[in-house]
Amino acid sequence: MVSATNTVNSGVPPNPAASIQAERAASKFDPKEMHYFLEGGEERAEKFKQMMQQMERDPILSANFQYYDLTKDQQRELTALRIDRLTRYIENESFDDFNKRMSLMGVFDPQLSTRLGINLGLFVSCLKGNGTAEQVKYWAMDKSAVYMRGIYGCFGMTELAHGSNVAGLETTATFDDENDEFIINTPHIGATKWWIGGAAHSATHCSVYARLIVGGQDYGVKTFVVPLRDSNHDTMPGVTVGDIGAKMGRDGIDNGWIQFSNVRIPRYFMLQKFCKVSSEGDVQLPPLEQLSYSALLGGRVMMVLDSFRVSARFSTVALRYAIGRRQFKAGSASDDKNALECQLLDYPLHQRRLLPYLALSYIISASAVKIETTIESTLENLDKAVEADDMGAIMKSIDSMKSLFVDSGSLKSTCTWLAAEVIDQCRQACGGHGYSAYSGFGKAYNDWVVMCTWEGDNNVLAMSVGKQIIKHILGVLDGKKVKGSADFLNNTEQYLNEEPVLRSVDDLKDLKKVLLAIEVAIIRVAYQASQTLKENKGDFDTVGAEMVTLSKLNAHHFMLSEFLDRMDSFESKQLVPYLESVAKLYSATIVLEKFAGDFLAQGVFPPKLNGELNSKHIPELCKEIRPNVIALTDSFQQSDMMINSAIGSYDGNIYENYFGVVKANNPPSKTKAPYSGALEAMLNRPSKEERERFEKSTETAKILSK
Amino acid sequence: MVSATNTVNSGVPPNPAASIQAERAASKFDPKEMHYFLEGGEERAEKFKQMMQQMERDPILSANFQYYDLTKDQQRELTALRIDRLTRYIENESFDDFNKRMSLMGVFDPQLSTRLGINLGLFVSCLKGNGTAEQVKYWAMDKSAVYMRGIYGCFGMTELAHGSNVAGLETTATFDDENDEFIINTPHIGATKWWIGGAAHSATHCSVYARLIVGGQDYGVKTFVVPLRDSNHDTMPGVTVGDIGAKMGRDGIDNGWIQFSNVRIPRYFMLQKFCKVSSEGDVQLPPLEQLSYSALLGGRVMMVLDSFRVSARFSTVALRYAIGRRQFKAGSASDDKNALECQLLDYPLHQRRLLPYLALSYIISASAVKIETTIESTLENLDKAVEADDMGAIMKSIDSMKSLFVDSGSLKSTCTWLAAEVIDQCRQACGGHGYSAYSGFGKAYNDWVVMCTWEGDNNVLAMSVGKQIIKHILGVLDGKKVKGSADFLNNTEQYLNEEPVLRSVDDLKDLKKVLLAIEVAIIRVAYQASQTLKENKGDFDTVGAEMVTLSKLNAHHFMLSEFLDRMDSFESKQLVPYLESVAKLYSATIVLEKFAGDFLAQGVFPPKLNGELNSKHIPELCKEIRPNVIALTDSFQQSDMMINSAIGSYDGNIYENYFGVVKANNPPSKTKAPYSGALEAMLNRPSKEERERFEKSTETAKILSK
Repeated sequence: MVSATNTVNSGVPPNPAASIQAERAASKFDPKEMHYFLEGGEERAEKFKQMMQQMERDPILSANFQYYDLTKDQQRELTALRIDRLTRYIENESFDDFNKRMSLMGVFDPQLSTRLGINLGLFVSCLKGNGTAEQVKYWAMDKSAVYMRGIYGCFGMTELAHGSNVAGLETTATFDDENDEFIINTPHIGATKWWIGGAAHSATHCSVYARLIVGGQDYGVKTFVVPLRDSNHDTMPGVTVGDIGAKMGRDGIDNGWIQFSNVRIPRYFMLQKFCKVSSEGDVQLPPLEQLSYSALLGGRVMMVLDSFRVSARFSTVALRYAIGRRQFKAGSASDDKNALECQLLDYPLHQRRLLPYLALSYIISASAVKIETTIESTLENLDKAVEADDMGAIMKSIDSMKSLFVDSGSLKSTCTWLAAEVIDQCRQACGGHGYSAYSGFGKAYNDWVVMCTWEGDNNVLAMSVGKQIIKHILGVLDGKKVKGSADFLNNTEQYLNEEPVLRSVDDLKDLKKVLLAIEVAIIRVAYQASQTLKENKGDFDTVGAEMVTLSKLNAHHFMLSEFLDRMDSFESKQLVPYLESVAKLYSATIVLEKFAGDFLAQGVFPPKLNGELNSKHIPELCKEIRPNVIALTDSFQQSDMMINSAIGSYDGNIYENYFGVVKANNPPSKTKAPYSGALEAMLNRPSKEERERFEKSTETAKILSK
Repeated sequence: MVSATNTVNSGVPPNPAASIQAERAASKFDPKEMHYFLEGGEERAEKFKQMMQQMERDPILSANFQYYDLTKDQQRELTALRIDRLTRYIENESFDDFNKRMSLMGVFDPQLSTRLGINLGLFVSCLKGNGTAEQVKYWAMDKSAVYMRGIYGCFGMTELAHGSNVAGLETTATFDDENDEFIINTPHIGATKWWIGGAAHSATHCSVYARLIVGGQDYGVKTFVVPLRDSNHDTMPGVTVGDIGAKMGRDGIDNGWIQFSNVRIPRYFMLQKFCKVSSEGDVQLPPLEQLSYSALLGGRVMMVLDSFRVSARFSTVALRYAIGRRQFKAGSASDDKNALECQLLDYPLHQRRLLPYLALSYIISASAVKIETTIESTLENLDKAVEADDMGAIMKSIDSMKSLFVDSGSLKSTCTWLAAEVIDQCRQACGGHGYSAYSGFGKAYNDWVVMCTWEGDNNVLAMSVGKQIIKHILGVLDGKKVKGSADFLNNTEQYLNEEPVLRSVDDLKDLKKVLLAIEVAIIRVAYQASQTLKENKGDFDTVGAEMVTLSKLNAHHFMLSEFLDRMDSFESKQLVPYLESVAKLYSATIVLEKFAGDFLAQGVFPPKLNGELNSKHIPELCKEIRPNVIALTDSFQQSDMMINSAIGSYDGNIYENYFGVVKANNPPSKTKAPYSGALEAMLNRPSKEERERFEKSTETAKILSK
């Protein structure tokens, strides 16, 4: 019997906490300072921390392990209660601060931030993007939609038969000049508004995307505010709403469907910042149809930030687990009977499975902040231009917006795909325990992956980005110049050869050279695609796969260069060596290894170097980063509440914590299932022969054959 | 107003069924005959069909859409009721037939087949693998464990702190020679039996893996039958069981934890086929410790078959959807206002995203049957040898078992990973609707992915396979010969150069050459790994990533050669062209494209050919297969019940079916949420100022500042 402990033991229990604490004690840099780097500055970081503390202490908002046992109905209710609670915060802080709060909530309760974001991020953004200043003021401020008081908006874009092709939506808004009204109608099942978050039970209003029909002419899809429910929360006549029901994840959101049966709204409920219909039926069209989708831009940007935070969260869980968990005795140690088993993270394969995702989280952080500030300034400039009615400035803003559509589309698709991979791979790296709901992976994955198909399906977005790049290349070859983040394409002619850019392991360590290698890969892949395109008479659909590859490489180029910029400009130079290791590992694995086929086929590096990349460079980088893993994950400063994983707590006491959660949520005193009667009846059932009334027995056979 | 239809429409609704039916009518081969090919013969296929019909008509067993709305507790209960129902079938058919039934149930209710498989596939297999003939007869037959009558077994292998390292388990079974008993004990929290399916509420007995301690000496992990519950279904004294709680998926299984506090069992409850302890405490050890894991082999084999069926199921859903769904007007058609939008599957990228998975499903089918028959004969031979007490034959069987561990490990890990990818990618290809629970992807994915970490974690399995291959290569270089499915390694010296194996698109079309290319890739990757290994003093952990790659390539080699063999031996030669297209697409995408980095780095094909593979060969194959997609998916012959997807039915009436399911499961007549009161109270709350009792108003300020 071993010495006294918290339970009676006859052997020595594992002590994962000791491993983690020992590594924490040996940290070589200050995680707090690193945290400032990750969050883009001390002020911002401290703000986040204060908010987190408020939410940790709030009994309604605070995350907990019961969350993982909630049914769909319970999730829906909890989400509503949390929204109610959050309205009190938004009434007392700036919108900017509230957005920060949402970004944090998005880590541990993404369905909550989405359900709220439907009103704040989509409905209100749609008003701002498409409505006049007066319309915005009326619904958002005077009628308090921004505070979810009186009005709760939803976003009526997608239909049952139309998602990505917004221009093909079939709901109609027919102008009735006699009554100065629009008639909103769902012509058939395919045009049923579908997936509309908040429609099933919450929303009072909907910003409806519908075809403007005036005098029998179809002017394409425009936006209209349509009340769904009155102030008694009863649906308006002609409005049918229903619940979409169960989903793969985010069951806390009441996604719904809506059918309009000739619902009348006043003419001035059309959002008319760019597009106007006079009472006589004169139509003024917007300068760019896509302007009406600007409501989606904010969401895309948020998703890049979310990708950073969710990758950080689950890298932390899997890495803490990999440090605490031991399995098999390694190498020579196996001779010693009392030797501890090997920490998972000391296996080179395990390092290789997880450390790239830690590195990726670091890399995304810089771009997330960058793209956030870019969208803010772009939309602000556009609004100013519209207010001043300055057509030149409007067109310039539209140009910036187009390039923002490209960059944000490339980052949104690439980062959300990668973050899904991070959650999945980190789960697998935790073995069986990753499959427990209480480790947090399952719900997070299910909640996350919708990111890959919504608000711009990743493939559709990526293709539109790739298409731009190919067009740019064709332009450059025609003597045109590219401006903005893709200006390296101007060097196309210089790199259209088979010269390798990376020739040695030393080159792999040179981040500027790696950045150049990505540029050259983009140039060569795009050039090759442009040749295929010519063979196929300019049909871009035939280079779909290449366009997706280009979009991904473009995102990596953006992210790596942003990271290097931030690293250069960050004051504390002590952190640089650690940041450099991280950037090198990201480049070597998430970029070079993942796209090795393309890099090799395009001759960006030679086959021999691929061998060294795999057998030497990556393992060495992993080894270099290994001792700093606890400090690097602690630097995310995600508290236990935010991480909300039974196997990923700060203290590293994996088994006790996990067992504690399991017992708290499933009291072992209930030894029988509620349906135990059925099970016991099965086990204690009479024999088959008896249940067959012995009709098939030899005795019966004798009787019957007489 | 358009002509009369089933609902009142003011526009023409989409008609996805028409597209699917038109393509079905144009089928160029008989899906029934193809079905025989896929299932390995007419007899087997017809058997499956009869069983499916029985289950379709059985009110308890039949799949339905309510399934996707069940809470965890409801899933648990339904699973128990279905098991109860299935016991009636197993009493009336051969075990072989019942296994076929399980393989079908595994497609639409995997938690059911697993929960049953815990008793039949693990507990009973453990008895058979480790018990004497008398022990097997006693528990399995006389006490009716095989019928789940009286006894329901669970499989007590993994512990909280030990999964993959079975030899490191810490539960003890100490021999007490005075009482001729073993004392089963859980020494500390880490040794708590964990993840034990059926333990929480169902099992009466457990086959416990515990360290055999005799006379103070530790003989390693052996197996023991330990009763958990008496015939009243109350837990035995000293036995504590608990519920593991919520999981990422498979919530219908009552996984549990077990702690033994000095529980006594008679000596003859030790399973003693290979290992014996006499009443005097003399220990006879087994000839191979791994023999005790043979219980896991059956499960691995089943997982390959499951990979086939689940890939078939979701390829079918996504492809039917891609044929029925239309989005954007393609190319020149866009000028015509009345032109239908383009079918998703007519986009080259969409073909490229989905058709490889269709091809993969075809390829897996052959190997699934092959590996199933191999394990049956291997275990049979071993049993005969043991019965005859023929040590030579036992050792020979052990050799076959070792090679079966390799092949099954390679296939299990590769196929379960790929099937997870299939479900995920097929879901994404259905856009938003793939995220609806009623499309079936969500639950299927969540249920599936545990396959990648359980019963041999995929990475651990893959490493053990890769290790064997590297060892083989080292052996061959030392002049030894390899026997069995990896005998191509004997050609190592011939291919250790930089000569390409595939040089042209014609070579890519030659499946024998592709097979050779895989062999050469394996040889060169293994050789390179062996060199790295030497540099690292023979520490295999340093080539972990390479070992995983080798295992995957090995599985693809196995699968492609099995498929080619079956194609050669199948009587109907009419099918050959279609099967060849499928095999070529699989090779080009799932093998060559996915491992392009390795193939290029090893010079198995040159960079130029990679360009042609991507821009020419793969798109052409996709085009070739495109017209046969409905026939190829119909050939899986999975009925609507088995597919159980609101967007993947046979009739292709996607929107009507889907809307119908949504409305049936979520009646729109309930217009308010149960928690609507809270929402309405939020919306109708008094203003912030009023709620603050006007304490912060300027009026109050005046009063207070007096």
